[in-house]
Amino acid sequence: MKIAFIGLGNMGGAMAHNLLKAGQEVYGFDLSEKALQAFQAAGGLVAESPQAAAQHADVVITMLPAAKHVREVYLGENGVLEVLKAGSLCIDSSTIDPKTIQDLAHVAQDKGIQMCDAPVSGGTIGAQAGTLTFMVGADQTTFDRAQPILAYMGKNTVHCGQVGAGQIAKICNNLILGISMAAVAEGMALGAKLGIDAQALAGVVNTSSGRCWSSEICNPWPGISPNAPASRDYHDGFANQLMLKDLGLAVEAAGQVQQPVLLGGLVQQLYQQMCLQGKNQLDFSSVIQQYLPQNN
Amino acid sequence: MKIAFIGLGNMGGAMAHNLLKAGQEVYGFDLSEKALQAFQAAGGLVAESPQAAAQHADVVITMLPAAKHVREVYLGENGVLEVLKAGSLCIDSSTIDPKTIQDLAHVAQDKGIQMCDAPVSGGTIGAQAGTLTFMVGADQTTFDRAQPILAYMGKNTVHCGQVGAGQIAKICNNLILGISMAAVAEGMALGAKLGIDAQALAGVVNTSSGRCWSSEICNPWPGISPNAPASRDYHDGFANQLMLKDLGLAVEAAGQVQQPVLLGGLVQQLYQQMCLQGKNQLDFSSVIQQYLPQNN
Amino acid sequence: MKIAFIGLGNMGGAMAHNLLKAGQEVYGFDLSEKALQAFQAAGGLVAESPQAAAQHADVVITMLPAAKHVREVYLGENGVLEVLKAGSLCIDSSTIDPKTIQDLAHVAQDKGIQMCDAPVSGGTIGAQAGTLTFMVGADQTTFDRAQPILAYMGKNTVHCGQVGAGQIAKICNNLILGISMAAVAEGMALGAKLGIDAQALAGVVNTSSGRCWSSEICNPWPGISPNAPASRDYHDGFANQLMLKDLGLAVEAAGQVQQPVLLGGLVQQLYQQMCLQGKNQLDFSSVIQQYLPQNN
Amino acid sequence: MKIAFIGLGNMGGAMAHNLLKAGQEVYGFDLSEKALQAFQAAGGLVAESPQAAAQHADVVITMLPAAKHVREVYLGENGVLEVLKAGSLCIDSSTIDPKTIQDLAHVAQDKGIQMCDAPVSGGTIGAQAGTLTFMVGADQTTFDRAQPILAYMGKNTVHCGQVGAGQIAKICNNLILGISMAAVAEGMALGAKLGIDAQALAGVVNTSSGRCWSSEICNPWPGISPNAPASRDYHDGFANQLMLKDLGLAVEAAGQVQQPVLLGGLVQQLYQQMCLQGKNQLDFSSVIQQYLPQNN
Repeated sequence: MKIAFIGLGNMGGAMAHNLLKAGQEVYGFDLSEKALQAFQAAGGLVAESPQAAAQHADVVITMLPAAKHVREVYLGENGVLEVLKAGSLCIDSSTIDPKTIQDLAHVAQDKGIQMCDAPVSGGTIGAQAGTLTFMVGADQTTFDRAQPILAYMGKNTVHCGQVGAGQIAKICNNLILGISMAAVAEGMALGAKLGIDAQALAGVVNTSSGRCWSSEICNPWPGISPNAPASRDYHDGFANQLMLKDLGLAVEAAGQVQQPVLLGGLVQQLYQQMCLQGKNQLDFSSVIQQYLPQNN
Repeated sequence: MKIAFIGLGNMGGAMAHNLLKAGQEVYGFDLSEKALQAFQAAGGLVAESPQAAAQHADVVITMLPAAKHVREVYLGENGVLEVLKAGSLCIDSSTIDPKTIQDLAHVAQDKGIQMCDAPVSGGTIGAQAGTLTFMVGADQTTFDRAQPILAYMGKNTVHCGQVGAGQIAKICNNLILGISMAAVAEGMALGAKLGIDAQALAGVVNTSSGRCWSSEICNPWPGISPNAPASRDYHDGFANQLMLKDLGLAVEAAGQVQQPVLLGGLVQQLYQQMCLQGKNQLDFSSVIQQYLPQNN
Repeated sequence: MKIAFIGLGNMGGAMAHNLLKAGQEVYGFDLSEKALQAFQAAGGLVAESPQAAAQHADVVITMLPAAKHVREVYLGENGVLEVLKAGSLCIDSSTIDPKTIQDLAHVAQDKGIQMCDAPVSGGTIGAQAGTLTFMVGADQTTFDRAQPILAYMGKNTVHCGQVGAGQIAKICNNLILGISMAAVAEGMALGAKLGIDAQALAGVVNTSSGRCWSSEICNPWPGISPNAPASRDYHDGFANQLMLKDLGLAVEAAGQVQQPVLLGGLVQQLYQQMCLQGKNQLDFSSVIQQYLPQNN
Repeated sequence: MKIAFIGLGNMGGAMAHNLLKAGQEVYGFDLSEKALQAFQAAGGLVAESPQAAAQHADVVITMLPAAKHVREVYLGENGVLEVLKAGSLCIDSSTIDPKTIQDLAHVAQDKGIQMCDAPVSGGTIGAQAGTLTFMVGADQTTFDRAQPILAYMGKNTVHCGQVGAGQIAKICNNLILGISMAAVAEGMALGAKLGIDAQALAGVVNTSSGRCWSSEICNPWPGISPNAPASRDYHDGFANQLMLKDLGLAVEAAGQVQQPVLLGGLVQQLYQQMCLQGKNQLDFSSVIQQYLPQNN
């Protein structure tokens, strides 16, 4: 099996590295020379274009910033789908709107090519450690074929439904995540202002009906979750700008199907406000700063 | 030990019942004749007024609808604090704003009376089964004295901090709860509209960063949590009007200390909208109906 | 005619001054010694308590910070309603919730005393210049009696309906005002960021369907409305903390009648955020700073 | 002068009609056969494609549903810019995001073609009557050339700034409009619930600081503005789905420049909720129904 890997950034580079460690033959492409050098140093075969990488491959994996790049790589001038043989498999691990991948899968299907979406959770740390979770949208046959490949790069592979379902699961999860983080931020800041000890409040919430991942694992109040970004000045976490991107995808996808997301629409703007204040790179739990007098 | 119990409604009546079952001598008062009869039938001693009940008692427990009733019972004309002996203990289990109980405790302290707030979670089912959780605000001495009494009526007694801290913990928890329930409603409705199977989506969320009590235990989408109100037409749960009341307390308390609660302010209005539509008695997970085309 | 004036602060002091200039006999009371001295210097007769002032009077005017003060002055220990003769007239110009004044008017009516609410718009400048607008809630007889007295202190007297209607009109107007100011702030900041000249944008809005008092008279973008607070660093305007108070009244009154105010609930929190950032005294058009990168 | 008119729908058809009435030679194209027939009946010359229409023309006017259609018509396969002579003028009256028209104008400029955006306000009634207002983004030379042509179709032509500024002005105005309409709806519904006469409340608001186009000209409470859609069951107005589209453009444009629009984000979702409930075609003042118990 030969694999083409398009997009060797922080996430994609680490994922491709794990494929190489597993002994796979991987042809890689990225616009960044530096990314290509790191890939080559790890044993990867550098290609001159996405199409060139794909010409060698049975399987194409893409890990790209946004829908327009995904569409360009597969369908644009010198696109990958032009050269892939029938029977090939495409796995897109980018986080994009579900409609784009559904449209692409439709084109691929007409050429006898299998395509699935497999966005990830776990961040760069999970990508490096090979402990990512993949949320996969695919028919059963495609899923069964993709699963062992994804297993080189991650720990869990969840079959969410037909193509697009991986993206849907991811954006819905992150919509809930963004809102519940803001909820915890609001509740913790209110409690502290009212005079309860933050640790005591977290203790109650985490054994009660307010408990959530954002209160237990990634509490936005410094010191509550010792390993959380809040306990290291909100560094090295899931950046506000990435949360903003995912909320944007959720709101956009909601608009495409005429579905209201009242809180989502508001929380997207809260994260926009964070980014306007220059906090793009801080962990998204730093949204608690919108509720504190020292807006630093 | 003799106990006065003021407020024998759905919650208070069941709690007093558990005290009687534990062999305590309880003097009860309520404005409802029917509540008094049920209390008497269970072995309670009916008093003609809050003050009359308190005259017999070392310990007073109150379980009342709102702050104004609590203030009236303790401090109003013929109030309980007028007749209680120094060394008595007052436990208020009503859900009210923290400031009211702090003010009352201050007055009580001047008379040598101990007072604590001990709002509950667990609902009428927990009250009947004696499995309530009490969130207690008190100094250590008062907490140690109240704890064994509360143990007759509940399973857990959490010491949240000084007087008022129980109320603070409760309203902050329920603030987070109300928002995260709306978040899950929004995410589930969006996912379903986008075409993912609701069960599959819940599966992803509940093993990922979107998981929360509202997604795991009380999912608003029918059939996901088999024992949740959503799976029985939103009946027999935590009523929208109670969530509205608690969000109102959170927003009011936030206003008293000049603390913004952006999502709280919005979600309070969402629950107000539910009640305007006549859904006061439905479980608060029915907020998902604001996101469905059939607004039934 | 003898008038008692309770509450001689920035607003009330200036209003009482205008009554004195018109040759009225005014008995005044305030907790502040300084306020009383200024009142006396202007020819006012200082009373030792609200009740003492009222004992001399046919007409009582109150201008107080909040509902609790109004209730205390009229109905508290040594309250004004205890000593007023049947046939007296009470005018409350405080900005409070409608229910409080309706309750008080009910008590007054039983004693044969006429009562009306007459909250103002126009600020301290209008109070000094005698150009206030009064929004009056009263039956026709009471209105006809109050009108000439109010005319000493203001330019317009609008009969809004039965008692309470003045307060209702004021809080509904200010609810719309607070939201539309935030709307204009949002639109102006967006336009500027997108690259249109702010003056050109204001020109379009003010001749189109987006025009409102906040865009025309009090535009939040500096320099658009030359005489507006935005053009003098947001000083000497309608303070954020007063807008916050009025939005609080609107949201509270909405809660009393179970009426949702989605945007109101959110905008109240936005103003709360402004106050948390220490901007209590700035004009409420400074809400535009929530939309600018330099949050100064 | 020969004019190509692409997009002969409700708006474009009426605009082209006014050009024909003014004696212009107009080549038209639309995908709808019916639209073409009406155009021909009015004296228009039917073209077989946008490009065919443009081949005859010195001036191209486009009036299309969304950015993708505009981009397709000008830049797609057989696009208009391929065949236009240097020195031609393109006027896009569609309502789209500013970035798209700025990008197109850049391409056009390289070919020596002038391009401007000129979105309209005034609706189908204004289009028919020739009383539209055009908000034009263009350099001075282009504006001067477009102005007399636009004068055949409208009453006012406002020069808003460089290319894109017309779109910016329109979406910022409509952002303010959507929010202030919801504000008036909220205030009117609250006032009515609190017991004030709606006409009296509108009277106060319209002579006070809450006044806006939505309260004066298009009040959402039936009967206040006799000629407004609210007084005819919300028919024949500015449809909810169009307000939703414009709010979507504003939020999208805001996202492109990282500008928060907190209220805009929320109000977009409110209009989405209206459309979910099947009210797409009602006037946008029908948003007041979200605040009324009978959600009909």
